[in-house]
Amino acid sequence: MSKYALGLDFGTASVRALAVDCATGDEVTEAVQVYEHGVITQNLPGTNEPLPHEFALQHPQDYIESCTIAISKVLQHIQAREIIGIGVDFTACTILPIKKDGTPMMKIGKFRNNPHAWVKLWKHHAAQPEADKINQIAHERKEPFLKYYSGIISSEWMLPKSWEILNKAPEIYEDTDIIIDGGDWLVYQMTGKFCRNACAAGYKGLWNAESGFPSKEFYQALDPKLKNVDEKWLRNIVYPGQRVGGISESFAARTGLKEGTSVSAATIDAHSGVPGMGVSDEGPISIIMGTSSCHMVLSKKLHFFKGYAGVVKDGIIPGFYGYESGQSAVGDIFAWFAMDFLEPEGEPFQKISEKASLLKPGESGLIALDWMNGNRSILMNAHLTGSIIGLMLDTKPEEVYRALIEGTAFGTRIILNTIKEAGIPVKELVICGGLVKDPLIIQIYADITGLPFKVAASKQAVALGAAMLGALAAGPENGGFDSFEKAISSMTKPPIKTYLPDKNAKAIYDKLFAAYKQCHDLFGREFPDIMKNLKQLKKSIHGGLL
Amino acid sequence: MSKYALGLDFGTASVRALAVDCATGDEVTEAVQVYEHGVITQNLPGTNEPLPHEFALQHPQDYIESCTIAISKVLQHIQAREIIGIGVDFTACTILPIKKDGTPMMKIGKFRNNPHAWVKLWKHHAAQPEADKINQIAHERKEPFLKYYSGIISSEWMLPKSWEILNKAPEIYEDTDIIIDGGDWLVYQMTGKFCRNACAAGYKGLWNAESGFPSKEFYQALDPKLKNVDEKWLRNIVYPGQRVGGISESFAARTGLKEGTSVSAATIDAHSGVPGMGVSDEGPISIIMGTSSCHMVLSKKLHFFKGYAGVVKDGIIPGFYGYESGQSAVGDIFAWFAMDFLEPEGEPFQKISEKASLLKPGESGLIALDWMNGNRSILMNAHLTGSIIGLMLDTKPEEVYRALIEGTAFGTRIILNTIKEAGIPVKELVICGGLVKDPLIIQIYADITGLPFKVAASKQAVALGAAMLGALAAGPENGGFDSFEKAISSMTKPPIKTYLPDKNAKAIYDKLFAAYKQCHDLFGREFPDIMKNLKQLKKSIHGGLL
Repeated sequence: MSKYALGLDFGTASVRALAVDCATGDEVTEAVQVYEHGVITQNLPGTNEPLPHEFALQHPQDYIESCTIAISKVLQHIQAREIIGIGVDFTACTILPIKKDGTPMMKIGKFRNNPHAWVKLWKHHAAQPEADKINQIAHERKEPFLKYYSGIISSEWMLPKSWEILNKAPEIYEDTDIIIDGGDWLVYQMTGKFCRNACAAGYKGLWNAESGFPSKEFYQALDPKLKNVDEKWLRNIVYPGQRVGGISESFAARTGLKEGTSVSAATIDAHSGVPGMGVSDEGPISIIMGTSSCHMVLSKKLHFFKGYAGVVKDGIIPGFYGYESGQSAVGDIFAWFAMDFLEPEGEPFQKISEKASLLKPGESGLIALDWMNGNRSILMNAHLTGSIIGLMLDTKPEEVYRALIEGTAFGTRIILNTIKEAGIPVKELVICGGLVKDPLIIQIYADITGLPFKVAASKQAVALGAAMLGALAAGPENGGFDSFEKAISSMTKPPIKTYLPDKNAKAIYDKLFAAYKQCHDLFGREFPDIMKNLKQLKKSIHGGLL
Repeated sequence: MSKYALGLDFGTASVRALAVDCATGDEVTEAVQVYEHGVITQNLPGTNEPLPHEFALQHPQDYIESCTIAISKVLQHIQAREIIGIGVDFTACTILPIKKDGTPMMKIGKFRNNPHAWVKLWKHHAAQPEADKINQIAHERKEPFLKYYSGIISSEWMLPKSWEILNKAPEIYEDTDIIIDGGDWLVYQMTGKFCRNACAAGYKGLWNAESGFPSKEFYQALDPKLKNVDEKWLRNIVYPGQRVGGISESFAARTGLKEGTSVSAATIDAHSGVPGMGVSDEGPISIIMGTSSCHMVLSKKLHFFKGYAGVVKDGIIPGFYGYESGQSAVGDIFAWFAMDFLEPEGEPFQKISEKASLLKPGESGLIALDWMNGNRSILMNAHLTGSIIGLMLDTKPEEVYRALIEGTAFGTRIILNTIKEAGIPVKELVICGGLVKDPLIIQIYADITGLPFKVAASKQAVALGAAMLGALAAGPENGGFDSFEKAISSMTKPPIKTYLPDKNAKAIYDKLFAAYKQCHDLFGREFPDIMKNLKQLKKSIHGGLL
């Protein structure tokens, strides 16, 4: 009998179920199911009340129904008893308030039409006032957790979003038993067991293995009413790959899965991609390159340096400190320019990419600052905006397009340089995501960083990583594994392509990088108010304030 | 009998002949004739030898033949004896080497295929090495003429281009009797009289009324072989509106004009627009707004300040110091973006302009540095390039288009501020040129500068200004005038439209201007090497050097 592990990859718009042969790594079947309500930004389903600015909600039932359908589709091709374990990865920090029996607060009649009773998706940014205050007070108090996050707490995370519920909907806060990460809630739905995954708790929950959660004094300093917020959070930490429990009778009945099938602790989607790409040691940096990019680094040592989003011990692979950095727009920038400016209809990338590939490095005289959606690393400043410098009357669209690609690659080079300067080895990149099929983009990245870029074998490395967690939860006694090394060795395949840097291109890009770095530091470090003021003026006018 | 004055406006691509009724200012007939060989940048006619980079030549015969045709067309509608005087304006600094009988050196067989024997058009930029050396040595010697040009001598001017002939074609330099401005050569062709117009001599020839031409010691310091260069230049200065002579028998025979008809000293085309727009006093600033823009200012006093291209006593209107500033790309920038990026085919401006007109000031959060063709004033740095700052993923093409318009208007505001700070009154703007028919553009200029913009009545203000010079040369005894005031009063009409600044828009633009100024100073003053290095890298790669 074959032994399969099932990865459930909960993304922003859909869930993917991927069944993988534990012995060969063959991805035997997969199914994708979109969420009925998608991302809710305009008004709650069934109401006409417009949501406030910066809201991004989801319907919790969508996760259950979509994964039920996706699992059922997978089970048309393999048998439930062939699945030895299941892993879950989830967007983060996506949270929801629930009762202690798991019921989402939005299911309670009186709260149904209150947006704070719904799932707050990772990109819900309305808790920025709370985040600002958290940052201010944490710095005043010199809170020890700050150093795990380069000193900046994001509005996307658990504490700001929890506090937002208290501030905006105190009656919901009061009635809520647990504020839970989406991934942990799904694991509860599957197993009936509550626990907190170390990945989300570490990267988004202010928890670290050394000192646990922040102190009650800190919460009280924020707001006396927030003093016991941590009692609404799960605090029993479990690690990705650790078995939480078995599929419950009711979830088995609903999906066709076998009752008792091992389920791993959840993990964050991007972080799941690291084992999924076959990375289990220092040296290679993992990048998921898509609409935005996420850079993940493993190191045996704990380094504190400026500009990473978070560092968590054992948060990605046990035995390693896992560092996360990111670029908040990458493919989104290329799509914005190609579609909004050049080819509103038809195939936006084909012509422009072909023309851009005929250009030589430096030929355009352009550099682009890649901050069209702010800067997540290393500057960590959401107020920054994009810029194109060096425009002349003979500048062509394909030169701008190429400069945008180069700009994001320079952004990556800044991140890699910072990692290297912190003492962490950077030998090569292993990549997956929507952009890796574009040779122009990846070659430019190799040339600009001077490093080999290896394309991971799996097109669904994130879901594959989740499946590995399932195989780890099952353990060797059931056909699974007892270590990430073994799981990676069995379940991943060698990179399908390596892009090597071109020396001549690198030499020219070094000159361009010097210009990029100068502009990066001018707008990002010395005069960050220039872009911030422009952006705030824009916001004021859109908000009708001026 | 009607009394007409004829303006001959020699532009970059064509000549325009405009007949104007001296009593009413009615523009009774006009004709345009393009130059057969246009702007010669690739190879000389009849040769395959490619011209060096930055060359822009013209064929001197084109001027004669085109104006002959244009005059003939005008004479189909009015009679030659009704023309009391003729004025000539010409692009500058456009020069040619000739024999003392007026024969261009390129007509001499052995020099026919040497580009240095041809007309060097104003935008021929190959004499930059000579200009660099002139600037360096003039500053070392503290030459008194420098202050008339803000300390910077352009490669476009008479001395660098003369020296280029000596350096690159010493045999032509040796054989040349006169190196002459195009306008003065045309006046010679018409009258048989050699003289040097004060406008071109002042703005482009290092001459000023107070101290004349530079010293022989200066030329010798540049190069001993250049010591007597001024002996190849005309030095008998005549002022625009001053009668040089009458139409010669041969020119009358060729064109149908009446022999003896008065001809004025020539002037520079842009400068001719000042009287043509009806400006004859301090207070209004004249701007010709087209592919590039030229700003001309009259003041009773001599001010030296940083950033104007030149100041010449009586150079535009007698009794005034005339100051010239400029923006090296304006309409060119809008066309570049609209055509090269958005609408390669069809009508490029209609849709984008309509959408841009619906936006509010500041709504885009963008600012653009308008240096896509360098900065002519106030920074006077050809190495600068354009930039767009504040890009976000929701930035739309019409927002960029509007930001480009705003960027050029901010550039104008910098020029106007500098003029005001120098103590010259700036009360309103009087404008002509290709852009003035676009209400979106002109309203933005009014809102950004906070000043009224008045659209001159004549669509051909430059040619009208030239016609006025003809009327002045003819004098009152022939139905003309003895002062610019009288000529302007009779021959121009009140502005056809005034754009008043909107207070609310101005208040928001003040905020945007602060951001523009900050970026202007960062890239233009503090770190000018960023753009220069990018541009030189681009040039090196295009030149195959890297």
